[in-house]
Amino acid sequence: MSKIILSINAGSSSVKISVYEATTGQTPNELAETQIDGLTSPPPQLKYTRDSKIVIKDKELSKAIASQKDAFQYMLDQLISDPELTAIKRKDDIAIACHRVVHGGDYGESKVIDSETYHHLEELTDLAPLHNASALEIVKYCLDSLPGTKNIAVFDSQFHQTIPEHIRTYPINQEVAKKNQLRKYGFHGISYSFITRSVAEFLGKDVGETNLIVLHLGSGASACAIRGGGSMDTSMGLTPLAGLPGATRSGSVDPSLVFHYASDVGKLSPNSTSSLHISRAEEILNKESGWKSLTGTTNFGTVAASSEPKMKLAFDILVDRICSYIGSYYVTLHGKVDALVFAGGIGEKSDMLRKRVTAEVACLGFEVDEGKNGKKIEEVVRDIGKEGARHGTLVCQTDEQFEMARICAVDENLLN
Amino acid sequence: MSKIILSINAGSSSVKISVYEATTGQTPNELAETQIDGLTSPPPQLKYTRDSKIVIKDKELSKAIASQKDAFQYMLDQLISDPELTAIKRKDDIAIACHRVVHGGDYGESKVIDSETYHHLEELTDLAPLHNASALEIVKYCLDSLPGTKNIAVFDSQFHQTIPEHIRTYPINQEVAKKNQLRKYGFHGISYSFITRSVAEFLGKDVGETNLIVLHLGSGASACAIRGGGSMDTSMGLTPLAGLPGATRSGSVDPSLVFHYASDVGKLSPNSTSSLHISRAEEILNKESGWKSLTGTTNFGTVAASSEPKMKLAFDILVDRICSYIGSYYVTLHGKVDALVFAGGIGEKSDMLRKRVTAEVACLGFEVDEGKNGKKIEEVVRDIGKEGARHGTLVCQTDEQFEMARICAVDENLLN
Repeated sequence: MSKIILSINAGSSSVKISVYEATTGQTPNELAETQIDGLTSPPPQLKYTRDSKIVIKDKELSKAIASQKDAFQYMLDQLISDPELTAIKRKDDIAIACHRVVHGGDYGESKVIDSETYHHLEELTDLAPLHNASALEIVKYCLDSLPGTKNIAVFDSQFHQTIPEHIRTYPINQEVAKKNQLRKYGFHGISYSFITRSVAEFLGKDVGETNLIVLHLGSGASACAIRGGGSMDTSMGLTPLAGLPGATRSGSVDPSLVFHYASDVGKLSPNSTSSLHISRAEEILNKESGWKSLTGTTNFGTVAASSEPKMKLAFDILVDRICSYIGSYYVTLHGKVDALVFAGGIGEKSDMLRKRVTAEVACLGFEVDEGKNGKKIEEVVRDIGKEGARHGTLVCQTDEQFEMARICAVDENLLN
Repeated sequence: MSKIILSINAGSSSVKISVYEATTGQTPNELAETQIDGLTSPPPQLKYTRDSKIVIKDKELSKAIASQKDAFQYMLDQLISDPELTAIKRKDDIAIACHRVVHGGDYGESKVIDSETYHHLEELTDLAPLHNASALEIVKYCLDSLPGTKNIAVFDSQFHQTIPEHIRTYPINQEVAKKNQLRKYGFHGISYSFITRSVAEFLGKDVGETNLIVLHLGSGASACAIRGGGSMDTSMGLTPLAGLPGATRSGSVDPSLVFHYASDVGKLSPNSTSSLHISRAEEILNKESGWKSLTGTTNFGTVAASSEPKMKLAFDILVDRICSYIGSYYVTLHGKVDALVFAGGIGEKSDMLRKRVTAEVACLGFEVDEGKNGKKIEEVVRDIGKEGARHGTLVCQTDEQFEMARICAVDENLLN
C-alpha cells in the first residue's frame, strides 16, 4: 500500500517541502512541492507546484511568518487544505515526515526520531548550531502536532561515514577530540548519494565500482572524492565551514585568522540563545564572509556575468579553490576517475564556471565540449565531456528531497 | 674586500649562528657554525663546528641560558673568544648580522634594520607572536650591543610576494582584511629560495624557467608551487599555522574547530606578555597539536619507524595531507612540473616517507628509484627519480643560513 512522505528541507532562510507517494522498494512519485524563501529578507515568498504544474508563483506572505517553523506550519496547512491534493486530506494522511538534518554526528544511517534520538540531535546542535537548529524546530513541531506521523532524520553527514580514519582525524589532542567529537564529518551527503547513484546508472556501472570527483556548488559549496560508490574524502569538516567558500562562508582559512579579525571573537554572539551557542568567530566566518563579502551579492550568477574587478576576483577565488580540490581528489582516487561531476545551483547553471574549471584542470585529462556545456541542463545527468577526453565530465541536477524520500522508501524499517 | 656575515636563525627552542666570509657578488664561504638546542627542555646543549670540523659536540650548558637572547649572547662571546676563529677577533669584525624573521608582512625583500624598520617589525609581531618574537629579541640585543654591525632582516615571507591576488586573498570582509593585513603570506621562503636556485642549477635550467612542487618537511612543514622560479602558491597562510601538520602544529583544520575544543579559546593565554598577545586558541593549535599530540613524540623518525597504530595513524595523516598539496599544485602548474622536491629534516632523512608519498602520487607521473632513494643523502641535490618517469623527483638539502648570507652578499646595498 502506498504511503505519503513529506521531505522537509530547512535552509538558512527558506523551507522546502516535497510530497511523495511511495511504496516500499519502489521509486517515490512526487505529487507536489512547496517552498517559502526570503525568511531573512522579508516579506517571505511562496511557490507551490502540484503535479509538476505551477499553482502559486512568488506570492508575498505576511512578515509574521518569520521563522522556519512558521513557514513549515503555513505550508502544512496549505497542503492539507488544497482540495486538489487529494492524497492529503488530513494530518493523519502523512505517514512520514522526513527531515534533512545537517549534522548527524556518528549516525551512519537515517533514524526514526524517538525521544532518545531527539535528545541526541539536540546535543549535536552544539556542534553545528547555525545548521541544525532550524530543522530541529520543525522536528519538534511535527512531534507535537502530527501524532500519527513517523518522523525520520536523514543526515547530510551519513554518506561520509566511509571516510578512512587517517583522513577524518585532525592532528590534535586525541582525548579532547574524542570527548568533544572533533573529527571531519562532511556534509551535502544526501546530494552526493543522489548524484552517485544517478551517475552510476547513467554510466551503466555498478555504484560499487563508480569513482567520481563531485562538486556540489551552491550558496554552500563542497567537493567529494567518491571511490567504489563511497565517500573517501570531502572538503567540509567538523562543520560546513571548512573547504570551499560559499555565498557568506569563508571556507578554509588559516585557523588563526579570526583571532586577528576582531577582538573577543571567542565570545558568544548577541544572536546566541540559552540553547544555541554561536561564537562571534563562527558568525563572522559563516555569515559575513564568502563572495557576498567580496562583491556585495550572494547571487553567483551576477558574479560570473560581471567583468568588474571585485566580481572577477571572487570568481577567480572560487575557481582556484575548486581546482585545488580536483587536484587533491584526483590523487585520492589514484587517477582512476570515471567522471568529474558538477552539481548544485551553480554547478548546474554556470556553464562559464564549468568551462573555466575544466580548462584549469585539463592537465588531468578533463575537457568539455563547448556545445554540450553551453546548453541549458534539463536532464538529470548530462555528459558535457569532449569526445576522446581521458576522463568524463558530467553535470547532474541533484535532488535532495527526492533522495530523502527514496532513502525512506527503500528501507522497510523506515517506511513501515 | 671580504666581510664577515653572521646568519642568525632563532627557532622555537634553538638558536643557530653560521659565520661566513663574503665579497659582494661572490658565494659566501662558511667559516664556522654554532648552535644551542633544547631551550624549552633544559639543560640546553651546544654544538660548535669550525672549518667543517666538530669542535664541541652536545655540551650541556647552564640552565641559566633560558631564552633565545641568552643563547645568542653565549654563542657570540664564544665566537669572539675562540682564538682559532681568526676572522672574528672583536665585535667590530662582524660587518653584518643577518636575522631570519618569519613574518615580514608586505616586505618583498630583505631590509636593513633601522629604527623605522624595527618599529614596523614590532608591529608585525602581533600577526605572528609565536614566530617573530624570539628573532626580535636578538635583533634588539644586536642593535644595542654591536654598534659597528649592520643588521639585516631576511624574511621567510618575502619569497612569496609573487603569489597572485586571487590565491592570496581570503574571501572575508575586505575592509577588515586590508586594515588588519589579513592575507596569505607564506613562510619557509628562505628555504624555497635556496632550493629553487639549487635545483635549477642541478637541472641546468634558468631559474626563471623552473617549475617545481617543493615540500619543506620539518617540525614545521609546508609545500610550495613554484612557476617560473617564483612562488605561485604555498600551504602556509596568514601565519605558519595553516597547511600541513607539524610536530606540534595542527595545520589546516575547520576554522570552527578550536571553538569546540575548549571554552574561552579567544582569551589571551597565560603565556602572553604585555607586548605579546597569544590567544589560547593559537597556543593549542600551534603548540599542543601535530604528531606530538597523536604519538607523544616530536621526532618524526620515531613515528616513521614504528608500526604502533597511533604512530601509523600520524604517518598516514602526514602522507595524506602532503599528497593533497601535490595534487593541488600539479593543477596550479598545469602539469608542467620539472620535479617534485623533498627537503627539510624529514624530507631529507625519511626515505620511507618519500617512498610512500611518491607511490600515492604515481598517477601524476612521479616515481622513485628505490636504490637512489634508499641511500643517505649527501649531495645538495640528489635525483631519486626512476629512469623514464614522466616527471622528476629530487631531494634537496636546504640551507637557510647560507641562503641568508647569499642574499646579503649578492645585493651590494646590503653588503656595503
